[in-house]
Amino acid sequence: MAEESSYPKLARNAVNRYGKPRGKYDFQTIHTIVNTSPVLHVSFPTPDPKDLFSAIIPMLSFMGSFTSQNAALDIPLDLYLHGYISSRLMRLSSTPSFNEEGDGLPLTIAATHVDGLVLALTPNSHSYNYRSAILHGFATPRWSHSRIPPTKTEMASTQILKVTIVDASAKIRVGPPSDDRADMRNEEVRATTWIGVVPTWTMLGTPVASGGNRVAEVPEHVMRFVREHNEEGERNAVAAVQAAKK
Amino acid sequence: MAEESSYPKLARNAVNRYGKPRGKYDFQTIHTIVNTSPVLHVSFPTPDPKDLFSAIIPMLSFMGSFTSQNAALDIPLDLYLHGYISSRLMRLSSTPSFNEEGDGLPLTIAATHVDGLVLALTPNSHSYNYRSAILHGFATPRWSHSRIPPTKTEMASTQILKVTIVDASAKIRVGPPSDDRADMRNEEVRATTWIGVVPTWTMLGTPVASGGNRVAEVPEHVMRFVREHNEEGERNAVAAVQAAKK
Repeated sequence: MAEESSYPKLARNAVNRYGKPRGKYDFQTIHTIVNTSPVLHVSFPTPDPKDLFSAIIPMLSFMGSFTSQNAALDIPLDLYLHGYISSRLMRLSSTPSFNEEGDGLPLTIAATHVDGLVLALTPNSHSYNYRSAILHGFATPRWSHSRIPPTKTEMASTQILKVTIVDASAKIRVGPPSDDRADMRNEEVRATTWIGVVPTWTMLGTPVASGGNRVAEVPEHVMRFVREHNEEGERNAVAAVQAAKK
Repeated sequence: MAEESSYPKLARNAVNRYGKPRGKYDFQTIHTIVNTSPVLHVSFPTPDPKDLFSAIIPMLSFMGSFTSQNAALDIPLDLYLHGYISSRLMRLSSTPSFNEEGDGLPLTIAATHVDGLVLALTPNSHSYNYRSAILHGFATPRWSHSRIPPTKTEMASTQILKVTIVDASAKIRVGPPSDDRADMRNEEVRATTWIGVVPTWTMLGTPVASGGNRVAEVPEHVMRFVREHNEEGERNAVAAVQAAKK
């Protein structure tokens, strides 16, 4: 029996602009973008009708399976928001209107990587190489303790919201600049204007010891993490320039 | 007469968690975070009552003054969303309910920089050094041409939304790890666990020429931009480790 390997394509998550070459819906692509993002932006409607603005909070998150810690990325996964859960977000996701009658608090989650500055013949054709993912899902609190409802102390220590994803999409731009044909026929402009891509990635620098540190050398596991992270970042960004557009 | 130099502090934008050491409301801090972000996340409520989710779009943006191109960052500024304006966002911001009866489409805009991985004695005390800004404002289209309403062709070429900011806040973490006192008294743990910060910034790599490029060398203005961007990124991230918490 064929397993699902992609999110459903709905009106809400369909990639319209450049959808054919850039839109992606498969689990592997979307889960990789999320799990390599140092920070995600989480948005939700504010229930106060006097407040017109939706909320955004930068948060830490990871997609995984609670039942299989070594789950691959190409299968359905839940998203776990961790770090400090804002009291507003936690209170909303615990309110009966969202949690008992509904499926949870509706969250929209965004993860974006800039992979390169794309320099074309004209400013209007300048672009980024990028990978972005937008996910929609319903958040429910996961209590650290098994007895529910939790005490006030337990509430304060609860660090996880589980988000069941209902749909998602990714948008990816790779490759060199795409200049207009008319500009590419302009030999004078081409003779004087460099075109190409400046690869971009998140750099981890030389670790700086804290004043209270007692360990003489930065441990090898930290140095290896820094080295491998930077090598992979550069490799991905350079590969994005060379990648053929599909 | 004293000029305003900060956004108003309202219930909506007040920094609650760690508000005393981390919350900032001044123009200079917030505008700098926005204008050094390669990408922003823009959120707005979706008007369809059947759609529970707010929308997020990653976009390019800049804060400035249309009347003074060299405006400093410590004065009131508008936010301009540019690049391609999604048809949904453009349509919404042009609808009479938002644009004629109201002040424009309510947008929430987030910009986040990760400045360091903060490694403490315990996983629970691990953190990031970061600078994040959240802004609330009302978006109205700016037509490229002076006659309104615009034609369909003009609509397609309109590339700017102006956002009048009504409130904003920033949240900033700097400094070394903050370990619990009990952990810091544990000499065995301190003797074996390195504590400190891995500075983090956006790296621009070696420019890669496009296949259609005719210019032999990468121009000096590109190389200088890359070099200065990287030096400033590292300098900021290292300075954040050393900065005293206020």
